[in-house]
Amino acid sequence: MKFSDAIAQFTADNCLATDLSSNPEISGVADIRTAAPDTLSYVESSKYADWIERTPASALILPDDARMQARASARAIAWVACHNPRLTFAQAISLFYQPYRPAPGIHPTAVIDPTVKLGADVSIGAHAVLGARTVLGDRTCVHPNVTIYPDVTIGDRVTLHANCTINERTWIGDDCIIHSGAAIGGEGFGFVPSAKGWIKMEQSGRVVLETGVEVGSNSAIDRPAVGETRIGQNTKIDNLVQIGHGCHIGANCAIAGQTGLAGGVRVGNGVLLAGQVGISNQIEVGDGAIVTAKSGVQKSVVAGATVSGYPAISHQLHLQAAAIHKKLPEIYQFVRKLQAVWGSDRASD
Amino acid sequence: MKFSDAIAQFTADNCLATDLSSNPEISGVADIRTAAPDTLSYVESSKYADWIERTPASALILPDDARMQARASARAIAWVACHNPRLTFAQAISLFYQPYRPAPGIHPTAVIDPTVKLGADVSIGAHAVLGARTVLGDRTCVHPNVTIYPDVTIGDRVTLHANCTINERTWIGDDCIIHSGAAIGGEGFGFVPSAKGWIKMEQSGRVVLETGVEVGSNSAIDRPAVGETRIGQNTKIDNLVQIGHGCHIGANCAIAGQTGLAGGVRVGNGVLLAGQVGISNQIEVGDGAIVTAKSGVQKSVVAGATVSGYPAISHQLHLQAAAIHKKLPEIYQFVRKLQAVWGSDRASD
Amino acid sequence: MKFSDAIAQFTADNCLATDLSSNPEISGVADIRTAAPDTLSYVESSKYADWIERTPASALILPDDARMQARASARAIAWVACHNPRLTFAQAISLFYQPYRPAPGIHPTAVIDPTVKLGADVSIGAHAVLGARTVLGDRTCVHPNVTIYPDVTIGDRVTLHANCTINERTWIGDDCIIHSGAAIGGEGFGFVPSAKGWIKMEQSGRVVLETGVEVGSNSAIDRPAVGETRIGQNTKIDNLVQIGHGCHIGANCAIAGQTGLAGGVRVGNGVLLAGQVGISNQIEVGDGAIVTAKSGVQKSVVAGATVSGYPAISHQLHLQAAAIHKKLPEIYQFVRKLQAVWGSDRASD
Repeated sequence: MKFSDAIAQFTADNCLATDLSSNPEISGVADIRTAAPDTLSYVESSKYADWIERTPASALILPDDARMQARASARAIAWVACHNPRLTFAQAISLFYQPYRPAPGIHPTAVIDPTVKLGADVSIGAHAVLGARTVLGDRTCVHPNVTIYPDVTIGDRVTLHANCTINERTWIGDDCIIHSGAAIGGEGFGFVPSAKGWIKMEQSGRVVLETGVEVGSNSAIDRPAVGETRIGQNTKIDNLVQIGHGCHIGANCAIAGQTGLAGGVRVGNGVLLAGQVGISNQIEVGDGAIVTAKSGVQKSVVAGATVSGYPAISHQLHLQAAAIHKKLPEIYQFVRKLQAVWGSDRASD
Repeated sequence: MKFSDAIAQFTADNCLATDLSSNPEISGVADIRTAAPDTLSYVESSKYADWIERTPASALILPDDARMQARASARAIAWVACHNPRLTFAQAISLFYQPYRPAPGIHPTAVIDPTVKLGADVSIGAHAVLGARTVLGDRTCVHPNVTIYPDVTIGDRVTLHANCTINERTWIGDDCIIHSGAAIGGEGFGFVPSAKGWIKMEQSGRVVLETGVEVGSNSAIDRPAVGETRIGQNTKIDNLVQIGHGCHIGANCAIAGQTGLAGGVRVGNGVLLAGQVGISNQIEVGDGAIVTAKSGVQKSVVAGATVSGYPAISHQLHLQAAAIHKKLPEIYQFVRKLQAVWGSDRASD
Repeated sequence: MKFSDAIAQFTADNCLATDLSSNPEISGVADIRTAAPDTLSYVESSKYADWIERTPASALILPDDARMQARASARAIAWVACHNPRLTFAQAISLFYQPYRPAPGIHPTAVIDPTVKLGADVSIGAHAVLGARTVLGDRTCVHPNVTIYPDVTIGDRVTLHANCTINERTWIGDDCIIHSGAAIGGEGFGFVPSAKGWIKMEQSGRVVLETGVEVGSNSAIDRPAVGETRIGQNTKIDNLVQIGHGCHIGANCAIAGQTGLAGGVRVGNGVLLAGQVGISNQIEVGDGAIVTAKSGVQKSVVAGATVSGYPAISHQLHLQAAAIHKKLPEIYQFVRKLQAVWGSDRASD
């Protein structure tokens, strides 16, 4: 496909400027570092601008930056400029790549309870198991070896990847994607200490995933003793994330890999939790807050705040304290000298 | 069910006082924040007492606290008071909720080696696979898509949730629960460095779960090169926990989500490991010790101690040091001023 | 088997010295702490030397240490000494233990697309599912309930343990081992923020595992939007590890449990990442570097460096700073006294 024909399809009204002098034939999309000569790549920001000098890609999506555009033109690389190169590149990928999707149909080895209600054009893979009274919406796809317990409700255009498990009473909205091995709706970790040891609290609640939620591979979202664990619409959850019983997550959040939320955490809308974050029981995180990677949140976070560290404090303060933490040996040496000269006693006079 | 009839069943000899003036009809149990009007909820401690003013619940389980009881009565909320509201609430849940449990029977798609020995009234789900010489106790339930390798011994009343894997030679005691996706008895991460790279050490040992152990979704418990990895009775393990090869965990411990134990760790009885804790190779943690969330334990912990931080130190010291860590920018500024006035040289005279 | 006969088989040219006076019958291998009397165990270093006084093992593999050898002889324990006792012990295990391996053959319940190409002597377990155009090498073993998506290429002598998932286009080299529940080749966590919320970037890339890679239970390795996520040959990955989209890991690395790499991380050869490490987006870690447990790497790490802490700094500096971190309450007390006496104002004169 000619580059000019490609950008006509994926840039829509998003195109700011182009250099079509070379107008190469494009066979696919690629990372700028490993691109083949007939591919299209992108540069998100000036941070990666030096790659323009080196990439073998024959076409680039660039930001609104005349200098970067000139560098590309100087190498006879065709380019299109737009406000959001990454978004435009996402659209370009979709032009060249269609994700794998099984055809509609029910594999004869799937075990489907007679009380299950199936929508139109569902795809149910080999060895999938659907429990009693489960409802599946239109065009929903259940990959092989998925297990769905009874009384689960699943919307339209949902994808359940292989080997994931959906426990009883879970409610999954339209357009959700559950990746392989994820465990949705399992029993919350609810035990009451007693003289005889831990007593199990039955977990009578359910998990609700609103429209457009994505849950990564091998993540676990537990149901609570009573009520719901709820993930708001379009919230995206990465791999190996733990969402404890009774958490309520708002809409449009992004939760990165290996982050864990203990029980009853309340997260607002548009919150970013980076990787390996931990949030303690019953904590509240306000709308639009950001928790940076590996932070441990033990106190509620106000809307819009960015917090870091363990225990998490304001990100700015964390950066300052971390910078000085490295100087502790030097600070301590000075303090020891002061103590030797002036003495703790004298200082405390 | 009338509230008075309900409490007769779930409070047993645990009831300290009641207000049955309204004696409402109860249809279920609920979280105090999201309760429907005809439900029973609970207040664990004065921390949540303000919810008594707002909850729509028509009945409450309260602690032995006259002030909270008066607040409930003032709103015409029926209540029962007891020493342990959370335990009583657990009992109340069981009055209104029966967990899903498949009926005894063997699904025709299950693949069961002819040498397997099955106890009475077992339930084996669709597409489950039971390897040679495996033994299953009475009333044990194997959910769909579970894989059991050969030579596994499983006791009575055990539940194996969908898509979990039990590797060869694993021994699982009575009343254990293994949640979805958990991998029990896989090969420990045992490699010996050599000039030719990593050489695999075969893992000839096994995993033993004593009576009443619970293992969360997508957790992994590895077997060792020789000997056993052993989890003591009634120890409860949350989701996404890693137990390395050769660990020995005592009885009645609780291990929260995403905690990881490297190889050969020894944990006593009644130990609490909070979420995202890490424990290094060969460390010992004494009976009744507590490790708070996200701590990294690099030295053995004595019985009864509470440790925190990374590296983990006494919890009290950790709290003090963390509080001062936040003041490091201010401390450093003062130290710099001192250095400017008095100089490192002079202080070191 | 007589100890002398055993060591003839497993020590090869590695034997430095022996004491065969007792030359006991050996029935197996064991941990030194829990050894039965007729077993062979090992002592890796002087750290564990005191166990020589207590172990019931009747034979030991010892290091090249005359004192430890004398202690064993004094208790009439037979021994063999060698330069690398742990490696020799690994060889001894293989003498007494053969790991479980299903016989070649295809279980009738496996679902294998007609376009799949199978090598010689493959073993395919019950309920395994192999997607279209998948290629399996010779003697490769697919355990029960494994799901392989279309267009996957798998080499010779590969083991896929139960309930793991291999997504579309994944390429797995010879002699790889994938443990239970691992998810290889799932969609990277790629979303572009927009006014309408997160927009999914299709993940058109693939995962490549070179020869001899091992991936632990419930780990997840994601494919990128474009290009590859690549794990170099003989790199060993433990349980519950997250490898983000587009990471490139070199050869002969070891990555311990619950470690997570965000997107686009570049790791050299022979790198050690201990447990619960986190590495931020696009970071580079040079050949032979070591990252100690729980560290959070936010800046690139040069070859050969050892880094620790969060944020990760040089290991030596981390140890010093951590030691002084514990003294912060004491330091702060002294600083406060100084401030009281000399005042911030005066110090800033």
